[in-house]
Amino acid sequence: MCGVIGIYCEDESLTSRIAYFSLFSLQHRGQESAGVAVSGDSVQVYKGMGLVSEVFDDSTLTKLQGNSAIGHVRYSTTGESKIENAQPLLVKSKYGPIAVSHNGNLVNYWDLRKELEEDGRVFLTDSDTEVISHLLSSYLLDYDVEGALSILTEKLKGSFTLCLLLDDKVVGYRDPYGFKPLCIGEGEFGYILASESCAIDSVGAEFLRDVKPGEVAIIEDGELRFERIASSKQRAVCVFEYIYFARPDSIIDGVSVYETRFNIGRTLAKESPADVDIISPVPDSGTTSSIGYAYESGVPYIEALIKNRYVGRTFIMPGQSSRELSVRLKMNALRNNVRDKRVLLIDDSIVRGTTSRRIVELVRKAGAKEVHFRVGSPPIIAPCYFGIDMSTREELIASSKKVEDIRHEIMADSLAYLSLSGLIDSVGIDESDLCLACLTSEYPVEVPGERCIRKC
Amino acid sequence: MCGVIGIYCEDESLTSRIAYFSLFSLQHRGQESAGVAVSGDSVQVYKGMGLVSEVFDDSTLTKLQGNSAIGHVRYSTTGESKIENAQPLLVKSKYGPIAVSHNGNLVNYWDLRKELEEDGRVFLTDSDTEVISHLLSSYLLDYDVEGALSILTEKLKGSFTLCLLLDDKVVGYRDPYGFKPLCIGEGEFGYILASESCAIDSVGAEFLRDVKPGEVAIIEDGELRFERIASSKQRAVCVFEYIYFARPDSIIDGVSVYETRFNIGRTLAKESPADVDIISPVPDSGTTSSIGYAYESGVPYIEALIKNRYVGRTFIMPGQSSRELSVRLKMNALRNNVRDKRVLLIDDSIVRGTTSRRIVELVRKAGAKEVHFRVGSPPIIAPCYFGIDMSTREELIASSKKVEDIRHEIMADSLAYLSLSGLIDSVGIDESDLCLACLTSEYPVEVPGERCIRKC
Amino acid sequence: MCGVIGIYCEDESLTSRIAYFSLFSLQHRGQESAGVAVSGDSVQVYKGMGLVSEVFDDSTLTKLQGNSAIGHVRYSTTGESKIENAQPLLVKSKYGPIAVSHNGNLVNYWDLRKELEEDGRVFLTDSDTEVISHLLSSYLLDYDVEGALSILTEKLKGSFTLCLLLDDKVVGYRDPYGFKPLCIGEGEFGYILASESCAIDSVGAEFLRDVKPGEVAIIEDGELRFERIASSKQRAVCVFEYIYFARPDSIIDGVSVYETRFNIGRTLAKESPADVDIISPVPDSGTTSSIGYAYESGVPYIEALIKNRYVGRTFIMPGQSSRELSVRLKMNALRNNVRDKRVLLIDDSIVRGTTSRRIVELVRKAGAKEVHFRVGSPPIIAPCYFGIDMSTREELIASSKKVEDIRHEIMADSLAYLSLSGLIDSVGIDESDLCLACLTSEYPVEVPGERCIRKC
Amino acid sequence: MCGVIGIYCEDESLTSRIAYFSLFSLQHRGQESAGVAVSGDSVQVYKGMGLVSEVFDDSTLTKLQGNSAIGHVRYSTTGESKIENAQPLLVKSKYGPIAVSHNGNLVNYWDLRKELEEDGRVFLTDSDTEVISHLLSSYLLDYDVEGALSILTEKLKGSFTLCLLLDDKVVGYRDPYGFKPLCIGEGEFGYILASESCAIDSVGAEFLRDVKPGEVAIIEDGELRFERIASSKQRAVCVFEYIYFARPDSIIDGVSVYETRFNIGRTLAKESPADVDIISPVPDSGTTSSIGYAYESGVPYIEALIKNRYVGRTFIMPGQSSRELSVRLKMNALRNNVRDKRVLLIDDSIVRGTTSRRIVELVRKAGAKEVHFRVGSPPIIAPCYFGIDMSTREELIASSKKVEDIRHEIMADSLAYLSLSGLIDSVGIDESDLCLACLTSEYPVEVPGERCIRKC
Repeated sequence: MCGVIGIYCEDESLTSRIAYFSLFSLQHRGQESAGVAVSGDSVQVYKGMGLVSEVFDDSTLTKLQGNSAIGHVRYSTTGESKIENAQPLLVKSKYGPIAVSHNGNLVNYWDLRKELEEDGRVFLTDSDTEVISHLLSSYLLDYDVEGALSILTEKLKGSFTLCLLLDDKVVGYRDPYGFKPLCIGEGEFGYILASESCAIDSVGAEFLRDVKPGEVAIIEDGELRFERIASSKQRAVCVFEYIYFARPDSIIDGVSVYETRFNIGRTLAKESPADVDIISPVPDSGTTSSIGYAYESGVPYIEALIKNRYVGRTFIMPGQSSRELSVRLKMNALRNNVRDKRVLLIDDSIVRGTTSRRIVELVRKAGAKEVHFRVGSPPIIAPCYFGIDMSTREELIASSKKVEDIRHEIMADSLAYLSLSGLIDSVGIDESDLCLACLTSEYPVEVPGERCIRKC
Repeated sequence: MCGVIGIYCEDESLTSRIAYFSLFSLQHRGQESAGVAVSGDSVQVYKGMGLVSEVFDDSTLTKLQGNSAIGHVRYSTTGESKIENAQPLLVKSKYGPIAVSHNGNLVNYWDLRKELEEDGRVFLTDSDTEVISHLLSSYLLDYDVEGALSILTEKLKGSFTLCLLLDDKVVGYRDPYGFKPLCIGEGEFGYILASESCAIDSVGAEFLRDVKPGEVAIIEDGELRFERIASSKQRAVCVFEYIYFARPDSIIDGVSVYETRFNIGRTLAKESPADVDIISPVPDSGTTSSIGYAYESGVPYIEALIKNRYVGRTFIMPGQSSRELSVRLKMNALRNNVRDKRVLLIDDSIVRGTTSRRIVELVRKAGAKEVHFRVGSPPIIAPCYFGIDMSTREELIASSKKVEDIRHEIMADSLAYLSLSGLIDSVGIDESDLCLACLTSEYPVEVPGERCIRKC
Repeated sequence: MCGVIGIYCEDESLTSRIAYFSLFSLQHRGQESAGVAVSGDSVQVYKGMGLVSEVFDDSTLTKLQGNSAIGHVRYSTTGESKIENAQPLLVKSKYGPIAVSHNGNLVNYWDLRKELEEDGRVFLTDSDTEVISHLLSSYLLDYDVEGALSILTEKLKGSFTLCLLLDDKVVGYRDPYGFKPLCIGEGEFGYILASESCAIDSVGAEFLRDVKPGEVAIIEDGELRFERIASSKQRAVCVFEYIYFARPDSIIDGVSVYETRFNIGRTLAKESPADVDIISPVPDSGTTSSIGYAYESGVPYIEALIKNRYVGRTFIMPGQSSRELSVRLKMNALRNNVRDKRVLLIDDSIVRGTTSRRIVELVRKAGAKEVHFRVGSPPIIAPCYFGIDMSTREELIASSKKVEDIRHEIMADSLAYLSLSGLIDSVGIDESDLCLACLTSEYPVEVPGERCIRKC
Repeated sequence: MCGVIGIYCEDESLTSRIAYFSLFSLQHRGQESAGVAVSGDSVQVYKGMGLVSEVFDDSTLTKLQGNSAIGHVRYSTTGESKIENAQPLLVKSKYGPIAVSHNGNLVNYWDLRKELEEDGRVFLTDSDTEVISHLLSSYLLDYDVEGALSILTEKLKGSFTLCLLLDDKVVGYRDPYGFKPLCIGEGEFGYILASESCAIDSVGAEFLRDVKPGEVAIIEDGELRFERIASSKQRAVCVFEYIYFARPDSIIDGVSVYETRFNIGRTLAKESPADVDIISPVPDSGTTSSIGYAYESGVPYIEALIKNRYVGRTFIMPGQSSRELSVRLKMNALRNNVRDKRVLLIDDSIVRGTTSRRIVELVRKAGAKEVHFRVGSPPIIAPCYFGIDMSTREELIASSKKVEDIRHEIMADSLAYLSLSGLIDSVGIDESDLCLACLTSEYPVEVPGERCIRKC
């Protein structure tokens, strides 16, 4: 889970600021590190740990002069929170400087790395981005950009949406499955590639279109061209972008994220009605589907929970007895709204169940007569190998427990999940064009040890 | 606008953590600086610029050992963002160490300071807190705590809610007008004084009651006692705590903030209905009243605007052309929700009008057919001298313009404010017990150059 | 042990830089904190922990605009290493802003503070500088600067060399005993007051003269005037400035520090000759007296020890076995220079004896046949109450041990101290005009529990 | 100019501290960055900009657990002061983790890099260390450590002293010319490889011997072995290590640095006597040769100049008029020592001449009757390509000017350099075994555009 951008800007002093603003609007896609590479007289990169607004200041942006840029925000995955893993990765090669921003995950990363090591190559990081840069530089010895990406596509297994700076060319590429989104906009300043359309809005540009799976977008000397370099019989668009990950104001592959979530709420209301007094989201992930549920059901939308807006990465929670305080600090129940009421809570999904349990308890202790729970997705039963850090299969409560057992575990008076067909209808994309692996345990590409549905 | 807390905790290693957690839940009351003073073997203070979570870490909290503590979060007012102004202020006096956390504003600060300077006194800061500490230490030469506070009350003009550490005693005091809130809770750990009840919830304590205007609460040797030391014929509770400032999950002087805002929305709907397709808040300040308006009117509550959750203090906005991007970065319109719709936006108040204008423009550009605006308070026509930093009278758009002119200025299709009586009814507190000065220009205490309504 | 400066500079943009450079040349007088106060449109102060070069940068210096300034470097004394104790201390008073830089120590600090507390006064720090600012502001209510300093002098017991910023006046004052040095220079830019003449050299100014004990120097509107405001029958100039503390290129009260130390070496050679092959300093404190000893004795000056130039405050020495490595890291013996040689080591003084012992051991282990030790001062037998942090009487090895016992303790083949008369002759100042308390245990002013020699 | 170390330590919790202490004693070899790589369960590296004592603290050292380590301090060369260039460089390869610390400079760096890029390789830094890691990993595919280093030696042109961590093996290697020093010591803890013997002393270990040119030292499973893997007909030991660069307490290739400098002084006295009153070093670079000169000539050694010990990297020197103050801040003349005297100043070398000129002027302005200058090396006429950053040929004053012209330029009354034969005799190493390129313009290895003396 990361965010990528690419910028071509005619005013070379404005490029890094456009990059900064657009990354800022993709901050929800990753808060661990942020970086920008700019191609001017030379290619420079600046990156650091933390939020976009913490990494950059006016003087660092001013130093990054040039017409082309790519950027990246990185999600905090388990363990390795290191500056070495921050992107874009900038390498020098025979082709010239190559900078890479990557959103996705390579299933055959270790195979590829071993193969390269057999050749005597060395690696300074443990990221798949470095492997991609090695392969790319090799293919660019003999092929043009389109050719190199075409061979790369055959080599890589997994998901990869890339923004590249190849010398002064800005290149956007989306793997043939189209797991992760990428779209392109045009503004007065020039062009912008971004993971989500909200980044295009944020810099005042107009949305042009989504980059298609298997398609490359190249901006060279101010000219934009597209080429379809990999055939894609069937897409595998990540359904969790719609359920949880993307910003509600984004439109991905022609589908509004807000609308999808609103539809999810309406569908849930039809599939699993509840005899309650108020509908309340688990903030903020359940907000839109709760509004949809309330709209459909006619039950008032009234908040049962308030979230502390200042909970961030740096918050410390020291000591044993303090840990018990943790939930209360992040959320508080609105006593007057829930007292003696039958409350329906809606969240986008349940992963381990522990947080849901605490929230139900919080609302009940605040005086609710009944606490019902609805989930805006089917049960998550299998891990993701394509970029969403969802813990192991063992940790997923729905991988081993039935709905009634989960209801008991989270101590709700009733619990219902959205049906798979309800989800697919809410999104409005063909089932065969979606990656639903975490919900079905059937993977669109081969993953060792998992069942693959070859879509053809 | 600040937040204060006082803690008595039987486990002296837990005190600073309780203080930390409760300040964390009052973070919305001030983000400029944070500090905690703890009385153990000696009285120590630790404070710094920034958020509670930025100022403190595990090792600083661990060093602050003792049973008694007070804390403070400070709002960023114009100009002087200095560590010297951070609170609590700790002084040594004949009485012993005195630490002061203050929420409010002294109208006669300069008179008091000059008087003290005539005596040869020196000042290391420009804060009214230092003046309070001087007076307090003088009165404590001859009087006990209650006596000293009683004389202090006669001396000070303006608003002052205080949490004090007097040696190892924790003292909470609220001026006789009760401008700013203060309440007390009891937990397994001991006692907690706090500006708002959400802080009591956050540490798992039970709300006991509000400290009354003119009343002191003293926790000494683990025992809590109250004493009414100043007569208060009429209260002057700040109405803006309910409209905007306090957290919605707090209950202040017996009134739920959420309920008040929900009522405001309902009242607005009755007073100023609108023929629209959707009701949307200006996030986050208009959320609760929008929910109330939608509830009353039956028009769907659907968001027209998404706020970027990562907008913070450190965000830079460099350069001229960049400044135009600023609104888009903070908020984005949901095109699919507003296209060809008649949209009603609701905000808590309008100060200068510039932001409202930009928001209306944003929604209109996203395709709304009509954009109407409702405001959850009467027009703000006069400045606040009691602690809310609301700019000068000249900057207040409603101090010189009529509603129709304001509507024209913000380019809305219609505009309506809540009536004063509608506000008072929504709060449910007697008009004579509220400070409504910013809405009426009639001040409950004498302010040079302003009209005073002596309430008696 | 601290350094103070005062600057009057006609170019108001240069003032803070002159202050910076002169403080930089007094860095040896204190490395804990540094600060500068400048009087321009208002009086501003900037201070921080650490070296002058760490505290200030170009932008902080540029912000400090004005014609008058004072500055301070603070020595790290035991315990309280806090920013609160950094100087100059800036206070606001009826007189206006008062900034104080103080070098010295008040024997009656607690008496004075209690007296002020009886009056209801409060203290934000535990420094005698704050007490001085209280008294000064009181006296300035009724008297002019000279009058106020005159009364202050009667009130204070101990040593106090002050640089003051009184509104826009720069004031230098030296207590009637003249414990601590202060001199004045004139440059093209204006005037400079400084603890040592090396600071005057460092900014290209000409040395004018020493400020006399009991004399005030006032620079007002660019004009310098002196006034003798306190009678001083007998001076008590700190002899340790010459022995150890001052920089060798300074000239204090007409006496060259380098010459004094060179003379000490020559006198030592005459008083206590040694049959050795080489003379070597304990670097850097014994360098100049070693050169003098070698000059007088004709024995070659050849270094036995090399000091690591990068040993600083931040150096960590973790763990038990690591601690044994500590001496070797700071110094190393030059094996080839000492092997099979009779070596004479010279240091300026011996405080606890532990370091001397380790150094003797280091040289012996490197192969020296004999290791002799000479000390450029008489034994230190009593603590200092006037500003030099010399540990308690118990920790002073010479307070309880005879020379032969000390020799045994430090494991030298021979040991000799300079005689008191040898020291006095080397300095060339009348015995009655020197403070020799640490060497004689006879104090020039009353100190509770110590014997006072009233010099009259 | 850099410093390298390698450690094998039986107590794996002590390894990083031994590394820290030894790097600390090599701090004079580089102040730009410092780093340590440790091989324990995995290989970890920690590095940062600044001094050893600034980069590491107790917690970072504690995290670096393992029996093997290498370290590096880097000299600040022009331009690229970046964390990317800090060493050790850690890479992953088929062989396993490889960490490299390099002291030296590759003349054929760009040729090697281009060759590797032709193969599709990518580079993340611009350092020759990364090129070395690429080659090494390739050779290690087919050869053992000795074999790989042997082939590497044929490939690399220039100087390279390496400390390597190959998985858990600590490897020290010195190019067949032996440009840069490397020696090995044994302590109770285990073994230590270091650029200079002072590092061995600093950790209480015993000096075993120098690593010979073309020889590898491998510590594997606690066992030390040597192997001569490259024939070296003629050494080319850098003479500037003795003249200026190494610490005086080090013994390099059997020759004491202090003794060499002392001999240089004595030889200078014989070659170029001066009729003067005092001999003074330019501190600190001329100290030892001045002592030798004084010893030989019988003229007193008395300091004319005092150096400010706190001049460091961070010192700012803002503005035009301030720049004139710069010399005075670094050094001050001792007026009383030079007034009306004939002074002889001795420095180790003259590079551009500007500093020498300022120093002569400083002493003359302080009252010296005559100021003579002696230099402890022959004129530097040619640039160094093997690791000492000595500016371009054009900047070297002696590359275009005769001695008399230089004397005139620095405004000395007389000037003399040490003769080349005098230098060689002072060092005591065969001329044919020294690299004297900067003094003769004849290079021991081929450098494009320079004359090469092939020594055979």
